[in-house]
Amino acid sequence: MNRLFHVPLSPFCRKVRLSLAEKKIEVELVEERYWEQDPDFLRRNPAAKVPVLKIGGKMMAESAAICEYLEEKHPEPSLMPRDAEGRYEVRRLVSWFDDKFHNEVTSKLLYERVNKKVMGAGYPDSSNVKAGAKAIKYHLDYMHWLLDHRRWLAGDVMTLADFAAAAHLSALDYISDVDWNRSAVVKDWYATIKSRPAFRSILADQVPGFPPPSHYADLDF
Amino acid sequence: MNRLFHVPLSPFCRKVRLSLAEKKIEVELVEERYWEQDPDFLRRNPAAKVPVLKIGGKMMAESAAICEYLEEKHPEPSLMPRDAEGRYEVRRLVSWFDDKFHNEVTSKLLYERVNKKVMGAGYPDSSNVKAGAKAIKYHLDYMHWLLDHRRWLAGDVMTLADFAAAAHLSALDYISDVDWNRSAVVKDWYATIKSRPAFRSILADQVPGFPPPSHYADLDF
Repeated sequence: MNRLFHVPLSPFCRKVRLSLAEKKIEVELVEERYWEQDPDFLRRNPAAKVPVLKIGGKMMAESAAICEYLEEKHPEPSLMPRDAEGRYEVRRLVSWFDDKFHNEVTSKLLYERVNKKVMGAGYPDSSNVKAGAKAIKYHLDYMHWLLDHRRWLAGDVMTLADFAAAAHLSALDYISDVDWNRSAVVKDWYATIKSRPAFRSILADQVPGFPPPSHYADLDF
Repeated sequence: MNRLFHVPLSPFCRKVRLSLAEKKIEVELVEERYWEQDPDFLRRNPAAKVPVLKIGGKMMAESAAICEYLEEKHPEPSLMPRDAEGRYEVRRLVSWFDDKFHNEVTSKLLYERVNKKVMGAGYPDSSNVKAGAKAIKYHLDYMHWLLDHRRWLAGDVMTLADFAAAAHLSALDYISDVDWNRSAVVKDWYATIKSRPAFRSILADQVPGFPPPSHYADLDF
């Protein structure tokens, strides 16, 4: 049986979960408190982080490498365009969200508000939370600009770029940190992606001590 | 003419320079003081970072996406294996170096010692430098373990993973932060990669105020 070692609100895990579900690859989800540095887990993954995917007897780490592997081994339904320019744009945006958005927004809101408490690492740093709340506006505006020109973030078809973005935004939405009133096109995009069957498991996530707001799993939010 | 906007010691720029040179794609190198947020540069790249590659009239950002694009458009000489498992391993290691190694080592040594001064952002934080000097040992040992099993980092052929690693190590070697005596196999690997024609431009780099040590450009270091 395939297994995904994950934590529910990790955007990197969510991106892999969305890819797996879209491609109908069944996995058992195993929560992994990676910060506790369990020796068994470290043996599976010396980088000591999630996600780790056990598939076909192989252990795989690094969400970007995992998603590219899934795309190559299970090309249908495709999450990458066929042309090199289109594929570049998908990868550029995946990096944008997993690097820039992650550093400027996710790490400053989600990690301060949730991860610190779950890991027993103290209280949120209010200057980080403030910086994250400011930065997300700029990023929502950038998404608005992209979606004003394109049906999906990287072009006319849904790709890994949409899953990367939705993975971060859904985790932030779990703690009510996304202002969906800022852009109607961004909200429409999220409503469309949220209603896909691949999204169901993510909308069912529950983190003890952090009940999600009622709009989180509501398809008509 | 193709152009690469870069800074000389950036490992992300060096990885792209190595890919371009290996594939014999000519580019004009343009130094870009990206932290000064020049409006022209921001228009080329809203992420406000280097490298930015101007190629075929197109502006491209994000080093991982650029390298994959170059590989797809100019497949020879190849820097990626043909099989999905091999390609996964290359991408995993590129992320290892550009994410984990970068956070734990490069940002703590190179950015503290050089970037802060160049950017006028103050003095090195000695606790960061200490943490970086400790972490690089663990990473050199991990490379030793890989190279003890394989000819190159990701397998039997030279790939983007070797360029990602060499990009970080060469930038750190410029400030004498790599202890080449720690592992003979790692030193041999670096001597081999350093002697490639693609490496020449990197060995000729000069950063004002930071003269490189004599061993930096020496192929017999």
